[in-house]
Amino acid sequence: MSTAGKVIRCKAAVLWKPGAPLTMEEIDVAPPKGKEVRVKMVAAGICGTDIKSLDNKKLAPFCPIIMGHEGTGIVESVGEGVSTVKTGDKVIILCLPQCGECNTCLNSKNNICKEVRLSGTHLTSEGNSRITCKGKTTYQYITTGTFSEYIVIKEISVAKVDEDALLEKACIIGCGFATGFGAAINSAKVSPGSTCAVFGLGGVGLSVIMGCKAAGAARIIAVDTNKDKFAKAKTVGATECIDPQDFEKPIQQVLFDMMNDGADFTFEVTGNPETVETALASCHKDHGVCVIVGSLASWIQLNINSHLFFSGRTLKGSVLGGWKTKEEIPKLVSDYTAKKFNLDPLITHTLTLDKVNEAIQLMKNGQCIRCVLLP
Amino acid sequence: MSTAGKVIRCKAAVLWKPGAPLTMEEIDVAPPKGKEVRVKMVAAGICGTDIKSLDNKKLAPFCPIIMGHEGTGIVESVGEGVSTVKTGDKVIILCLPQCGECNTCLNSKNNICKEVRLSGTHLTSEGNSRITCKGKTTYQYITTGTFSEYIVIKEISVAKVDEDALLEKACIIGCGFATGFGAAINSAKVSPGSTCAVFGLGGVGLSVIMGCKAAGAARIIAVDTNKDKFAKAKTVGATECIDPQDFEKPIQQVLFDMMNDGADFTFEVTGNPETVETALASCHKDHGVCVIVGSLASWIQLNINSHLFFSGRTLKGSVLGGWKTKEEIPKLVSDYTAKKFNLDPLITHTLTLDKVNEAIQLMKNGQCIRCVLLP
Repeated sequence: MSTAGKVIRCKAAVLWKPGAPLTMEEIDVAPPKGKEVRVKMVAAGICGTDIKSLDNKKLAPFCPIIMGHEGTGIVESVGEGVSTVKTGDKVIILCLPQCGECNTCLNSKNNICKEVRLSGTHLTSEGNSRITCKGKTTYQYITTGTFSEYIVIKEISVAKVDEDALLEKACIIGCGFATGFGAAINSAKVSPGSTCAVFGLGGVGLSVIMGCKAAGAARIIAVDTNKDKFAKAKTVGATECIDPQDFEKPIQQVLFDMMNDGADFTFEVTGNPETVETALASCHKDHGVCVIVGSLASWIQLNINSHLFFSGRTLKGSVLGGWKTKEEIPKLVSDYTAKKFNLDPLITHTLTLDKVNEAIQLMKNGQCIRCVLLP
Repeated sequence: MSTAGKVIRCKAAVLWKPGAPLTMEEIDVAPPKGKEVRVKMVAAGICGTDIKSLDNKKLAPFCPIIMGHEGTGIVESVGEGVSTVKTGDKVIILCLPQCGECNTCLNSKNNICKEVRLSGTHLTSEGNSRITCKGKTTYQYITTGTFSEYIVIKEISVAKVDEDALLEKACIIGCGFATGFGAAINSAKVSPGSTCAVFGLGGVGLSVIMGCKAAGAARIIAVDTNKDKFAKAKTVGATECIDPQDFEKPIQQVLFDMMNDGADFTFEVTGNPETVETALASCHKDHGVCVIVGSLASWIQLNINSHLFFSGRTLKGSVLGGWKTKEEIPKLVSDYTAKKFNLDPLITHTLTLDKVNEAIQLMKNGQCIRCVLLP
């Protein structure tokens, strides 16, 4: 019996206040309105941003909130005027929308769609949510909230993927993988035969390595102070792994010397502000490009020696790997299906949604790279 | 009667100690040795770097030194093995050499030839100079020393220009003009129809504006706290001129608003470290590119808010406009001859070489943009 047009009662992992564990709750998911889509979730990934936000007091005004912003599912029904997906379509959730109409979307160089402004409201539409929990309006993290059996989301925040897509794994492509892979492909534009150095070997750092490899880099040096991460880095494409603690010289000097005046491309993926200068100093003194991938709090001042720029180095930011999400994330899913890259090394754990707190603990303890939740 | 093979006695402007005025001295210029060229100078430009260095105590060990690093002339004779220029050729002096053989020269992305290492010695060859003054070895500023009637220079530091080149004006192309013009063309890669903002309207800043214009920028905003410079900026291509002191809002906010989330390209040409963050904040939040053109002392730490990079901005350095000097500077001279750009607005003064101290004073007082010296 079709659920279209009816309220769906189902389960979701809800945060009632920052710092508290998530609780599995019954929620009511109303039918989608105009330009909205109701999705039956198949899988959700846990990303570092979720983990950071869970304890962030700034989230308090948005509780109760369904966490999660990576996910895949199947369209249950669509609201009026929806044209890009239909009931039964396999889809991927886009934590960065692509409206296709704003100045940003119309500019080939940009990917931060103006509609991202809703992210800070954690509501799918202006001032409203289609979800309630115990009668209360329930927010959806970054307008998505993928830790749920069903969600309603804007059409611009969801993209159709191939019928044969493996949703249980492809869910992590939406944020973490796209961010790292795209930083190499789109932001740095890694060139064939080039040398790269990647600082930080979490899920995003490993995805950067995969991007460097896909772009044809000849040498990919993985840098981390935790040697336990080296085996995995090599699995995904690192040609060498080094621990800064093993050298007397500063790591930038080590890399600068190893790679003949520095690496062509370097990536800061630790989220540590001091590593930005280190990564910049490690790239080639003349043509080197350093991409900041790790997220830094907005109030942080970077302190960078001006001489590093003197000979021509480039430092740049990257958001969600520079992908035009609705247009390009499905292509990444197709590439995954076509085995152009392998997500298995990144997905170390798969748990049912009701074990979400266990999954969060695994992430916090560094015991897991990416954990997929199955509702 | 040919001077080839003989020592030439002539005049040069010599610095005997930092901070002292230059003095016109008789010098002896020995014939060029292997891979060297003796040039009869026709014109020399005074660049900001000369002015800064004149008072720099670090120059003391290299005195007596002939200052100047922009210039044009005619080849008087060549040493053994010189193949790219011959007696009678019109040439331009290259303050950044291009040996054509080092890793840098062989890499299409780079222009800082490894032989630039000699610049710091202020000697044309390893440990030696062909010039003496009062019996003393005489150094040549950055291995060039263009404030002279004759100089001996390495073949890699000189390039043949067209027979019809106007040497008396083209001399400023070698450093100041190339630096600014190339920062727009090569480093920023200004695109047709784009928006640009240039901070600092000295000779290099004006050359940046000319580069933006040549690249087809639709809007070029010139920024300076000295309104006297605005008329000239408009002459060379600025579409608007603004003085930060006329606004209550910070200038980056003014520009950000004027140009719909910031200018596509911004250029820091004041040499003021704080303006780097301002120029970066003034470029488009997502795809904006900010180029540091103004020279900053090597010990200066830049303090930049990390959030400026968050959405994707790019900050980069630029050296001598990114030109492969020996290969490309002569093409700029040809473009000048072909009237693709006009140097007249930049050359506000032309004086004979013996008036060099007067010229320096004009530069120091900001009464002149570029002064050409004629030996």
